Amino acid sequence: MAGLPGPLERLVEELRRLPGVGPRSARRLAFHLARVPAAEARALAEAIAGLADSLHACRTCGNLAEGDLCPVCADPRRDPALICVVEQPENLAAIEETGSWRGVYHVLGGAISPLRSVGPEDLAVEPLLARVAAGGVREVILATNPTVEGEATALYLARRLAGTGVRVTRPATGLPVGGELEYVDRTTLARALAERRDLSSSSD
Amino acid sequence: MAGLPGPLERLVEELRRLPGVGPRSARRLAFHLARVPAAEARALAEAIAGLADSLHACRTCGNLAEGDLCPVCADPRRDPALICVVEQPENLAAIEETGSWRGVYHVLGGAISPLRSVGPEDLAVEPLLARVAAGGVREVILATNPTVEGEATALYLARRLAGTGVRVTRPATGLPVGGELEYVDRTTLARALAERRDLSSSSD
Repeated sequence: MAGLPGPLERLVEELRRLPGVGPRSARRLAFHLARVPAAEARALAEAIAGLADSLHACRTCGNLAEGDLCPVCADPRRDPALICVVEQPENLAAIEETGSWRGVYHVLGGAISPLRSVGPEDLAVEPLLARVAAGGVREVILATNPTVEGEATALYLARRLAGTGVRVTRPATGLPVGGELEYVDRTTLARALAERRDLSSSSD
Repeated sequence: MAGLPGPLERLVEELRRLPGVGPRSARRLAFHLARVPAAEARALAEAIAGLADSLHACRTCGNLAEGDLCPVCADPRRDPALICVVEQPENLAAIEETGSWRGVYHVLGGAISPLRSVGPEDLAVEPLLARVAAGGVREVILATNPTVEGEATALYLARRLAGTGVRVTRPATGLPVGGELEYVDRTTLARALAERRDLSSSSD
């Protein structure tokens, strides 16, 4: 960016490293930050710097945590007998937002992907098996993403958990609630049809 | 965001204040920043904080500047007899990227907009007239955005500059009407500058 002072160019460079931020939006954000009151820009800077200083992985589940334990593991109202396994903390956040999960989590840190050279040993698989082996766990929901990698990871974990006596489940795949058929991708639609549920027997 | 530590929630709140960043992308950015090496997050934080500490308006043209003068006004190779008037520094950056403008700039700080209660007195109009009155200016290109407000501002400035003996021009049509300068592709913008029309002769 010719014609602009160094600090602004440096900020644009840094912003461009963010996911989903191209050169134009990086510039737009930088100009915005140059225009807002200094206190507002500083609040953002401090929030970012504060992150780097204060966040670790939760000792128990691998979620982001300020102290030793993440807010979920530290909450005595959560049921530690139900473990929901996710790939990343953002998946955990999405499930938390539904307000429908009263158990705890286990964050793998990714999914098995031969293409990206990610094997089980690169994920928090052993800590999960150790939690189950420690006892008191009734069910493990394998809520990895409904992608090829996520499915492979779920299958791998299901095999590793077989014989532990713990119930192992996976969230249902199917049509998105509130969606319209013509906007659903083929694979999802085909799978939803194949995994159709009986309504007539629901009176059983 | 339940289930997540405070520093992350605070960062999401701050990110949501940025233009074009909705709740989902704010969360995605925050998780990204929680995952990258601490040094990378700190570099971004410092770039943002550094902005607030170091940027002012250029004494001459109103562009963003680190010292007294912006990089354009401080460059002895630029021709101070040619002034390109823009609304905001990001418009200036877009023109600089074409590499086709060898003159200097004047940043108004916005455009006349009765709807938003922005009048000429809210913009750097008098400093522009003073620069022209000081002498040595051959041409003023009114490169305000090709929007209703930008057009009105250009017409207003053309009237104020009439009788100064300075050539007053506007970039050629070819700019998409209703658009904003920084979203125009380089070629179109460079061509529009090259084909600028005389407004001072329109009273003939």
